[in-house]
Amino acid sequence: MTGTTLDDYTGRYAQRIQGMTASEIRALFAVASRPEVVSFAGGAPYTAGLPIDAVGEMLNELMARRGVSALQYGIGQGEEQLREQICSVMALEGIDASCGASPDDVVVTTGGQQALDLIARVFLDPGDVVFAEGPTYVGALGVFQAAQAEVVHVAMDDQGLIPEALEEAITTVARSGRQAKFLYTVPTFQNPAGVTLSEQRRERVLEICQRAGLLVVEDNPYGLFRYEGEPLRALRARVREGVIYVGTFSKTFSPGVRVGWVLAPHAVREKLVLVNEAQILCPSPFSQAVVSAYLSTMPWQEHLKGFRELYRERRDTMLESLASLMPAGTRWTRPEGGLFIWVTLPPGLHSKAMLPRAINARVAYVPGTGFYADGSGTDTMRLSYCLPPPERIREGVRRLASVMEQEMSVRAVFGAPAERGDTVGRPSVDTPAPGVA
Amino acid sequence: MTGTTLDDYTGRYAQRIQGMTASEIRALFAVASRPEVVSFAGGAPYTAGLPIDAVGEMLNELMARRGVSALQYGIGQGEEQLREQICSVMALEGIDASCGASPDDVVVTTGGQQALDLIARVFLDPGDVVFAEGPTYVGALGVFQAAQAEVVHVAMDDQGLIPEALEEAITTVARSGRQAKFLYTVPTFQNPAGVTLSEQRRERVLEICQRAGLLVVEDNPYGLFRYEGEPLRALRARVREGVIYVGTFSKTFSPGVRVGWVLAPHAVREKLVLVNEAQILCPSPFSQAVVSAYLSTMPWQEHLKGFRELYRERRDTMLESLASLMPAGTRWTRPEGGLFIWVTLPPGLHSKAMLPRAINARVAYVPGTGFYADGSGTDTMRLSYCLPPPERIREGVRRLASVMEQEMSVRAVFGAPAERGDTVGRPSVDTPAPGVA
Repeated sequence: MTGTTLDDYTGRYAQRIQGMTASEIRALFAVASRPEVVSFAGGAPYTAGLPIDAVGEMLNELMARRGVSALQYGIGQGEEQLREQICSVMALEGIDASCGASPDDVVVTTGGQQALDLIARVFLDPGDVVFAEGPTYVGALGVFQAAQAEVVHVAMDDQGLIPEALEEAITTVARSGRQAKFLYTVPTFQNPAGVTLSEQRRERVLEICQRAGLLVVEDNPYGLFRYEGEPLRALRARVREGVIYVGTFSKTFSPGVRVGWVLAPHAVREKLVLVNEAQILCPSPFSQAVVSAYLSTMPWQEHLKGFRELYRERRDTMLESLASLMPAGTRWTRPEGGLFIWVTLPPGLHSKAMLPRAINARVAYVPGTGFYADGSGTDTMRLSYCLPPPERIREGVRRLASVMEQEMSVRAVFGAPAERGDTVGRPSVDTPAPGVA
Repeated sequence: MTGTTLDDYTGRYAQRIQGMTASEIRALFAVASRPEVVSFAGGAPYTAGLPIDAVGEMLNELMARRGVSALQYGIGQGEEQLREQICSVMALEGIDASCGASPDDVVVTTGGQQALDLIARVFLDPGDVVFAEGPTYVGALGVFQAAQAEVVHVAMDDQGLIPEALEEAITTVARSGRQAKFLYTVPTFQNPAGVTLSEQRRERVLEICQRAGLLVVEDNPYGLFRYEGEPLRALRARVREGVIYVGTFSKTFSPGVRVGWVLAPHAVREKLVLVNEAQILCPSPFSQAVVSAYLSTMPWQEHLKGFRELYRERRDTMLESLASLMPAGTRWTRPEGGLFIWVTLPPGLHSKAMLPRAINARVAYVPGTGFYADGSGTDTMRLSYCLPPPERIREGVRRLASVMEQEMSVRAVFGAPAERGDTVGRPSVDTPAPGVA
């Protein structure tokens, strides 16, 4: 490499991605994982709640039954048995044969993240527009930005994506002569906002997209984690065409096996398989066999019920703690399910600038800016309640409230210290490492 | 999608990849996997040779010992324990601390295929040039072509890549004003040619690349499968800089777990991790834990010895069968290790045109054109000997020889029927599905 630097040498993709995550944030997560810190930062499920011994026995039996094929190469689309089981899982949210769902249109992926990456590779060219809720999943933002697509955020309220805002965004983009490729949405227990698209709006959003000829990418990692209220059918359950659906076993079973999937219209499915083969040859037959065995030999819906009870208690504890401890002027969402609460700070506070002081006080969260493509969200943060037990949640919220009160009193005396460390013009460094699922 | 077809809608990457694999070839592989067909087509290792019961017990113990973390999210670079073990494996081929190899510069990937995809994402822009042996690994070709790089083949002989041909290619590309990003090479027991870069040429090729400032990507899936002759140190073992090394556990343990790795200079490693995170969040901690347990609790080098003996016997059987059965004018390579023999047909025969007739005669192979970016190789084929037992190998070669003799006699009488079905101007449809590892 004599005479050239790495940056001269690497491609444009690598130069783009360089600005997209930040070692400072990765370092922060390393700190946040210390036992003395109450971490509301990650989106990791409580795998300690799995019946580990029974899973061990299951693996032993799996090897005896079909070890040779599980350890061998498989096919790019994923194993047929698992694709059939995936259809049974999707049927729990209304996606079944009546709306045209079939194992033949399922592609198994290396977790939901690779599903998004495959979709981006199939659809996105530099300069294309993607609509996404604002805020939206940080890993999706990373994929779209790496593909050089422009993410246009659509506002949400407590009922989810606002249909009128979507219509307006479509009109604006159409006028600008750019091509909008799809709406990326997490309609149920959204990451990071925790809100859910209401029944009425589901129909309305689909209508708008169909009229505009706009594809919908529905990402649904949390749909089976409802703690109260009536289940709402997935968007994909309501229409036969126009929706690409992304699912994962990362929350219902294990993120460590890295198994997700896409349900796509047939012609798209075919392309996803080709891209999958080019990228990884085939999704792990071993991981797929493990998920298949878990679904077919274990009482997984009972386990899921156990997780729902555990997470509901933790959500309740966090909501109660926020209500009793947060300073006046703080607002937060009230999720009916999923893993996240979205907090809006009192005026003048800056969640990223405050983070080092929160870590000092032994509590961690994800600053809101990471969930926007445009640097907004400085006064917001995402709190996850699924990992710490209730007493730790209360203690963590107490620590957080105390940090916020200090910030507010310092600000009242000295002006606006919260802006220290702000990175105007470099919003990308706010993006958390994609490990923040 | 009213009014637009899928091809209007999908991005340019998807439109490119459309031409890169062919459903006809995928169908062919489905046919080739029928039990009555002797398949020399795949590159799958003999996983039935693994001690499956012991692996089952190992998995059970793994869950008891560290199930909760194996089932949880991990980090984008891969687990530290496995990266240390990978360094011990690489040390068997001379890559150790003395040449600067360190666990910190290893990135764990979803098999060797994803390693190549990550490298392509980091380095390649449309129009860049990649040098590769001609023929070369089909999965690498797919990745480079999808990245819109131009693959320039460099000729080989029985001693591997020809240094003078590499020098000439570098000069030609430099004159044309294009940027050559790296030399992609499988120096040891090459896929598909089966040849090995000689000791003297290893030093010479490194010299040429260093003088030209050309990065080397060394792909080494087969290095530990030597059946005769003296082991040669890997290219990476000879220099501290300028070589990115790709390894995999797909042949030494299991392709089904999809675990490979890259050893890269530190600054490149950092970028590979970022791209890995964007693509899959993290390599499967579960698969990684399984490989770690296999390496630390099982006599894996003894297993490897068993595989070497098994494959050597099959290679010998195939070489003997070729010598006694092939029609005059047929040539083939004599691999000292690995999984593949490269056959050059007598003048006038066309391996792809002949394939349907071979399948009818219940024998399968991969036509040579798939291993070239430029449509050459019509008179070549790749034979793999690792899966069929010796008596099936003899029978398969007998069937193949008989098909070739029929082709030659038909050709002698009627002219050139072998050209039937040829796809002039569409060399891309010759490319086998990337599942052909």
